[in-house]
Amino acid sequence: MPIYIAPVEDMMFLFNKLRNNKNYNEIEKYKEVNSELVKDILEEAAKINQNIILPLAKSGDENPTILENGVVRTPPGYKEAYTKFIEDGWTSLSCDPKYGGQGMPRTVSAFFDEMISSASLSFKLYSELTLGAYNCINHHGSDVIKNKFLPKMVQGKWSGTMCLTEPVCGTDLGLLKTKAVEQSDGTYKLSGQKIFITSGDHDLTENIIHLVIARAADSPAGTKGISLFLVPKFIVNEDGSIGSKNGISTGSIESKMGIKGSATCVLNFDDAVGYMIGPKNKGLNSMFTMMNLERIVVGIQGLGISEIAYQNSLSYAKERKQGKANNSKSSNGTDFIIEHADIRKSLLNMKSIIEGERALCFWLSQQTEVSLNHQDEKVRQEASDLVSLMTPVVKTMFTDMGMEITSEAMQVYGGYGYTKDQGIEQLYRDNRITPIYEGTNSVQAADLVFRKLVNKNGDIINKYLDMIKNDCNTENAKIKPFTKELNDNLEILSNFTIWIKEKIQNSKDDASAACNDYLKALGFVSIAHAWIKVLEVSFKDYNSNKNFYEDKIQTANFYFKRVLPRAENYFKTATTGSDYIMNFKFN
Amino acid sequence: MPIYIAPVEDMMFLFNKLRNNKNYNEIEKYKEVNSELVKDILEEAAKINQNIILPLAKSGDENPTILENGVVRTPPGYKEAYTKFIEDGWTSLSCDPKYGGQGMPRTVSAFFDEMISSASLSFKLYSELTLGAYNCINHHGSDVIKNKFLPKMVQGKWSGTMCLTEPVCGTDLGLLKTKAVEQSDGTYKLSGQKIFITSGDHDLTENIIHLVIARAADSPAGTKGISLFLVPKFIVNEDGSIGSKNGISTGSIESKMGIKGSATCVLNFDDAVGYMIGPKNKGLNSMFTMMNLERIVVGIQGLGISEIAYQNSLSYAKERKQGKANNSKSSNGTDFIIEHADIRKSLLNMKSIIEGERALCFWLSQQTEVSLNHQDEKVRQEASDLVSLMTPVVKTMFTDMGMEITSEAMQVYGGYGYTKDQGIEQLYRDNRITPIYEGTNSVQAADLVFRKLVNKNGDIINKYLDMIKNDCNTENAKIKPFTKELNDNLEILSNFTIWIKEKIQNSKDDASAACNDYLKALGFVSIAHAWIKVLEVSFKDYNSNKNFYEDKIQTANFYFKRVLPRAENYFKTATTGSDYIMNFKFN
Repeated sequence: MPIYIAPVEDMMFLFNKLRNNKNYNEIEKYKEVNSELVKDILEEAAKINQNIILPLAKSGDENPTILENGVVRTPPGYKEAYTKFIEDGWTSLSCDPKYGGQGMPRTVSAFFDEMISSASLSFKLYSELTLGAYNCINHHGSDVIKNKFLPKMVQGKWSGTMCLTEPVCGTDLGLLKTKAVEQSDGTYKLSGQKIFITSGDHDLTENIIHLVIARAADSPAGTKGISLFLVPKFIVNEDGSIGSKNGISTGSIESKMGIKGSATCVLNFDDAVGYMIGPKNKGLNSMFTMMNLERIVVGIQGLGISEIAYQNSLSYAKERKQGKANNSKSSNGTDFIIEHADIRKSLLNMKSIIEGERALCFWLSQQTEVSLNHQDEKVRQEASDLVSLMTPVVKTMFTDMGMEITSEAMQVYGGYGYTKDQGIEQLYRDNRITPIYEGTNSVQAADLVFRKLVNKNGDIINKYLDMIKNDCNTENAKIKPFTKELNDNLEILSNFTIWIKEKIQNSKDDASAACNDYLKALGFVSIAHAWIKVLEVSFKDYNSNKNFYEDKIQTANFYFKRVLPRAENYFKTATTGSDYIMNFKFN
Repeated sequence: MPIYIAPVEDMMFLFNKLRNNKNYNEIEKYKEVNSELVKDILEEAAKINQNIILPLAKSGDENPTILENGVVRTPPGYKEAYTKFIEDGWTSLSCDPKYGGQGMPRTVSAFFDEMISSASLSFKLYSELTLGAYNCINHHGSDVIKNKFLPKMVQGKWSGTMCLTEPVCGTDLGLLKTKAVEQSDGTYKLSGQKIFITSGDHDLTENIIHLVIARAADSPAGTKGISLFLVPKFIVNEDGSIGSKNGISTGSIESKMGIKGSATCVLNFDDAVGYMIGPKNKGLNSMFTMMNLERIVVGIQGLGISEIAYQNSLSYAKERKQGKANNSKSSNGTDFIIEHADIRKSLLNMKSIIEGERALCFWLSQQTEVSLNHQDEKVRQEASDLVSLMTPVVKTMFTDMGMEITSEAMQVYGGYGYTKDQGIEQLYRDNRITPIYEGTNSVQAADLVFRKLVNKNGDIINKYLDMIKNDCNTENAKIKPFTKELNDNLEILSNFTIWIKEKIQNSKDDASAACNDYLKALGFVSIAHAWIKVLEVSFKDYNSNKNFYEDKIQTANFYFKRVLPRAENYFKTATTGSDYIMNFKFN
């Protein structure tokens, strides 16, 4: 079984040292969320993830969730762990105290999301979608609905799902066929089939609250006729008690490459009672509020899996002897593989990406909180634009890098990495869903380029690039070698941006063929920017914690020398255009 | 289940049009291997792979090989298919007619290797190692041994293995502990444990001929005391009949991420009778004759899996409708995903790498035959040096690109790609062993840089680069845009070569940290060179087969615009050195 030690020190470093964000610090309700409190939370979080959730990963992989006589059974140990999990209040961490939540900001809950992704992604998914549904209902539901459903969801006694995909529509939700027929009492009856529903059915909670997009009988075709409905597995009585079973059955569960402990369900709705959430025909908007936050969490999943893969390959590299290093000190000519240059390079590649991502994610968590909770609408809007720009970047970069990192970790193990015993290959398989779900990474890239660069509030990407440029204006001689490299790449990215904006207007296919490349270039630059923030602190506070900050500086150094320069190639190849791609005749 | 149509047309194109290799054409025994004969063989090969072997892939994945009461049982269908496979003579394709083989050159058998890798890698492995063992015995065994063992192996009635790895030694064979004690009759008794033995035990053949490296009782420590032994599962009597069971037992079989139909065994040798092959203490040399040929075949495995992944994602892209293309012609706003620029880009990426690799592999097959069979020793040696240079490149590039291609294929399928139904995720899992076994890709890169660039026969890499440079000297205006791009990258690669040669002498860690990058740069350039050869024919013979050659030219165009430029980044980052990597203090 893989080892895992939650990186609490690095998290506390970010929380303590990178919190100097004026707007974030102005949010009234978080002023009491101080360092001691957060440290206590993270230490408790480390315990449950290391001791109770980590073993579930192997259990779920070896005994996948099954559908048996109409009942979905989670793997051995899930129920007991989930009971403890909700008893300790982990489902309520970021929820509104009004409904029983602890009201923690994302700057804290994102750390928890990372830890539990490291420990067991399959187990995480049972509460992750509950939180997604909670956010959506809290944002768009009526008070009656909120009071009826949210307290139990916050408690974790009831869980939630997001039901979007159907056999003919994944990316393209305008094609959906699920119908909702209004009843005389104002409720709806839903009929249709939803597929790939994560935690769609299972035995961990008393009730499951499905958020379903469907087309009301009198609504138009396409995306403009989609409404959002709350459809509980069991009808909830007026007094809040659980009533009769609703018209939902589980058709099957998917057999998958990984995350086998997670129940990915086909759900059939047959005249299932549902309650409309938010305005009619605006269901996609309501759903996407939640989807966008969810996409960031998927990025964090990639980060969490990367972290545990790194930890294990590092540990293995320190205990496996094989081959002679160039400067061998051993008497029998065999050294620990961590002495070999290419193994070290591989480990530093992982580490420098992971820590850069974590810092970028912390910045994004702050922006998200500002976008939701700052008192000034203009400040909120500006933050919201940045969050919406960076959401597809974080989702895609962190999950793609997760594949690179879990793959490198396997290579460090050699043949042992391919066997089931070590648990490394499971990380590789589990992470492979993250570039696919919640919108494939290609969909993210198209979203970034066609919707996020420029919006009704202005030129968002230029604001972002200006901000980075500003932060590169340093007189600190120690940081200058880093900012120089970043400036060079920023220049490339700026040219790429000019090019792609022009193509969006005049040659859409050129832009489409370049989306993935553009996202990658932006991603590598964004992570470098996050590293600059880390470096500022590292040089400033160097003497207070030399080992820690020296580690940061050297890790950043690797990132700037070996990782960041990848950005250029994306620009070079993408700007060759797309004629030759679009005109190709596939046999 | 995935579809598969063997790419016979492309293979015949290579065989017919790229055979103008003077040295190869001088090999007497292959003069009768003409186009008609090869076409007949490939068409028969296509049939057995498409119809009989392809279904075994799913069968093996769903019902892995098991060890039951001491017997290793292959998946359902394997036995019947294997019987037909050897009846039709496929194990004998490239073997010497003296032992019942068909004597086909690698220019033909490599195509078969590709097809069967596409159809089922697990099934392929049962005969692949037999061929490896056959080559080794044929090269190093005595006539008595050859006459006793080879006919049955060529027939496929007996299979073979290569037993190298032990728990403490994979890459570093000098550490091996298996002992061989000489008996009064000149035979040896072997004792020790071997792990990760592919096809180490199974129920497909009457006997299994293990080639085992071990240390004779009076041999020195390290790699200089290793000898090679033939150790049969069942003792073979003087008359060739099968005698008593030898002292070999199967300890366990590995549970793996993929190639689950393949039996990866732990074998325990307890006073097992063995016969020394080749000179004492030179076992590693003998084994590596075989290993090197085997490494090329592993590269071909990656190519074969890439091909079937491409075919399936192309087919899916043509039948799946989702989203609106930029120039949509559909009335309801939904297009086949093959209309989307980024899907097209992804498909062309796969296709341009696959076809370039196939052409490169054909060139390498010719060189291999020249190295083994040309009458002039000097010509043989020159070819042998080129083969030894390109072996780690082909092994690594084709298997790493195999991961990129199977991953891209999964992305094309979206969520369906992650489920077991489509068979795409299996290709991704199956291929994941190829960058690991027969020497991890990092080991290949170190082998390339430290042993292959320059050897006792001179500066091999410079000869190779000069050859490419020569081939770029064209006056053909149509080819010039391609050769220009290749020349630019050749310039980079030449500088990289100068840099790395200097580092090998003066700063080994810099070279070690750059090995993987150097191999990649060389790999992308080599594939481009193979494309140049294809382009020459395509422009020259254009009018004889316009559709086919236009397809080639456009595919090459994609490679030169989007794939080849990746080479530069490897040079740029690798030449930043390694001080900061070697000095890093990992916690």
